[in-house]
Amino acid sequence: MATQQFDPPSGTRDFLADEVRRREHVFSVIREVYQRHGFEPLQTPAFERLEILSGKYGDEGDKLVFKILRRGEHEASGEADLALRYDMTVPLARVVAAHGSQLPTPYKRYVMGPVWRADRPGKGRFREFAQCDADIVGSSSPMADAEVVAAAAGALDALGLREFTILVNSRQALAGLLDVYDVPAGLGNGVLTTLDKLDKLDPEAVVRELTDSRSLDDRIARALVSDLTADDATDRMRAILKDSDAGLHGLQEIDRFMELAAPGVDASRIAFTPQLVRGLDYYTGVIFEFTARGVPGSIASGGRYDHLIEALGGPDVAACGVSLGVERIMLLVGDRIAAAESLDVAITVLDDSAGVALADSARQLRDAGLRTEVYLGNSRKLARQLKWAADRNARYAVIYGQQEHVTGMATVRDMESGEQRSVPMQELAAHLSRPASTKSGG
Amino acid sequence: MATQQFDPPSGTRDFLADEVRRREHVFSVIREVYQRHGFEPLQTPAFERLEILSGKYGDEGDKLVFKILRRGEHEASGEADLALRYDMTVPLARVVAAHGSQLPTPYKRYVMGPVWRADRPGKGRFREFAQCDADIVGSSSPMADAEVVAAAAGALDALGLREFTILVNSRQALAGLLDVYDVPAGLGNGVLTTLDKLDKLDPEAVVRELTDSRSLDDRIARALVSDLTADDATDRMRAILKDSDAGLHGLQEIDRFMELAAPGVDASRIAFTPQLVRGLDYYTGVIFEFTARGVPGSIASGGRYDHLIEALGGPDVAACGVSLGVERIMLLVGDRIAAAESLDVAITVLDDSAGVALADSARQLRDAGLRTEVYLGNSRKLARQLKWAADRNARYAVIYGQQEHVTGMATVRDMESGEQRSVPMQELAAHLSRPASTKSGG
Repeated sequence: MATQQFDPPSGTRDFLADEVRRREHVFSVIREVYQRHGFEPLQTPAFERLEILSGKYGDEGDKLVFKILRRGEHEASGEADLALRYDMTVPLARVVAAHGSQLPTPYKRYVMGPVWRADRPGKGRFREFAQCDADIVGSSSPMADAEVVAAAAGALDALGLREFTILVNSRQALAGLLDVYDVPAGLGNGVLTTLDKLDKLDPEAVVRELTDSRSLDDRIARALVSDLTADDATDRMRAILKDSDAGLHGLQEIDRFMELAAPGVDASRIAFTPQLVRGLDYYTGVIFEFTARGVPGSIASGGRYDHLIEALGGPDVAACGVSLGVERIMLLVGDRIAAAESLDVAITVLDDSAGVALADSARQLRDAGLRTEVYLGNSRKLARQLKWAADRNARYAVIYGQQEHVTGMATVRDMESGEQRSVPMQELAAHLSRPASTKSGG
Repeated sequence: MATQQFDPPSGTRDFLADEVRRREHVFSVIREVYQRHGFEPLQTPAFERLEILSGKYGDEGDKLVFKILRRGEHEASGEADLALRYDMTVPLARVVAAHGSQLPTPYKRYVMGPVWRADRPGKGRFREFAQCDADIVGSSSPMADAEVVAAAAGALDALGLREFTILVNSRQALAGLLDVYDVPAGLGNGVLTTLDKLDKLDPEAVVRELTDSRSLDDRIARALVSDLTADDATDRMRAILKDSDAGLHGLQEIDRFMELAAPGVDASRIAFTPQLVRGLDYYTGVIFEFTARGVPGSIASGGRYDHLIEALGGPDVAACGVSLGVERIMLLVGDRIAAAESLDVAITVLDDSAGVALADSARQLRDAGLRTEVYLGNSRKLARQLKWAADRNARYAVIYGQQEHVTGMATVRDMESGEQRSVPMQELAAHLSRPASTKSGG
């Protein structure tokens, strides 16, 4: 049989022990930081009714939703009635609509778990991947925007990832940009979508897309791209945007945000970035992305989306949030995290009649908090079992053969030094749970 | 709009903060105990290729699998190519087949996460529910069976659920039973399936099902039911099973298992239970169920299934395992678990110009490990914000209005006693992270 037949589905992964430990470490750090910032946990089902998700992610997004076939007699219809969670925001909107009165105001919630998108799998891009979101529903305060950024920055800090930059812009500033450059109203969204590619495409390609695909006047396209890619683009934009009401409002919003976020992240790491667009057009206020050297794209992103909850079927409440890109963060965290927890005690089995005594010892050692395994193979040879203990990274091996059975004393072998000593079976737990320094050389 | 429209899909649940905390507490206790017993974590995707799951759960089970529609141009076909995980055992078999050479021998793995079954939802029965399994693949030692039981018993103990009983039987003993009572070979599985209902139906109903649905001779049916429901059923069975090779072997298997499991669980809690069948017919050796008063059915169950990994497409290796019924365990754990973590510090916002100073204090308090929230509502009235701090169960409120702004001193209010004292803004974290006893009455 080809190995391939046992691979997990395309775009998904099996996580073996070391990888689960690495991921759980990252999740637990993020969880702890989110909680410290006053966010409460929420968990929603893996799937939603199809009607809840349909039409919420645009034409492109809708195609990437995994749909679940009806069951039983309806299966033959080939129709779907459920769909896997595509993000954490639509379920949040549903929960706010369903449980609103039970939730605190504002509702600060975090959520961590997988989402599923039928994207073409690629390097670092998966069909099942984790999201860790923190959102605040029901506050229009600029301090709320700063709070979600502080939570994300705190999580990255706690993971040892201090070298990030926060790019900031505002939907109001972008509206001002379109205004100042006389971009016709109907072309606005398309133009912004193309400008968002300035970090990937060369300027000339962006101009071409603006004129060819977006039907923008060539003169306007060149002026926009030239100004946004100038060395002093930020200063230019600060000057230019003042000529538009929306632009001025956007600049004020950005400055207030950067001021309030600065205590949480260090002012030098926050930069007004006039060409930052963020693909999703549901944002209404400040938008931001965290970038880090060595990782393409962003490691966290978010912004204010004041009418999205309503558009998704919930009440019309102000909201803002941040999403950590866990899969990219995993790349940065790398092997910094201690790998396999080693075994404290490996118990050898040299004689089947000792089984009950050894099971009893295992229980006592585990009750004392020691990670303990009993040899479960067929060999009754000591050398073979000590190799197993070494393979399992055991700190100590307990040897209890016929000789030990007679005296009731187990032999404890220090797997690092090779030293051995006799210990009464009933005192194993007390003996091995003492700090290592008092045990050696005895 | 009717609230119903925002309910999660039938048979699934939204878990709000308290419930997530309760569940995560249970999961973390189980995880810790499984690890202490030397089991390693594994995570597999939420869905598998349909061919991996098809035909693995019998006709009834196959109908309960959630199937995922093909995507893109294939969606119109109405065909499925993927399916949601139905249990943790089939993915384990696939992982053993795919990654066998990377895995330790024996492979002791635990897994915790949701599975999905399109069962009719009912009280305590869900379409999305969690499983916490511990299995040992690659050991035929009877100590392995005892080890999985010790892990499950250890987890229940650690959760404070000490009042359980372990019912034990063996597939060999059941084969002996069929043998001794001259049940025709072809009827065996059906007869066992019906005998499994002796804990739910009255004996006469079981006799009727044996004769009517299973075509068993009336005399044999009555003898079987009468012996299995007798007050001294266990003794009778011990005597009767000795007349069959399989029965004798089964009894020996059971006794060895009970002997080895006893150190981990207390012998009085383990009982040979001759009418225990366990629905799934893949078991080959010892089978067991944990029951607890006040909960119908079992709270944990498992057994030895030596050829299942091969039948599921993996190599032919011995295996045994246990599965904890988390949803039932949640019912037993009840409200024993401390609910909402309260807030350490609630920071009021009386004056927008203080925003940066307050954001800075929040960061310092959080860096000191204090769970801190900043008021994000629109009111600038102190009474309103102190009510918010009380609603959030805050231990302390920080008040920093115009008066405080002038002096650089914050007012710290003890939310229990109502006492207030002045503290320099820069010393808030140091002040509030000291143990409460040294802070009061100052």
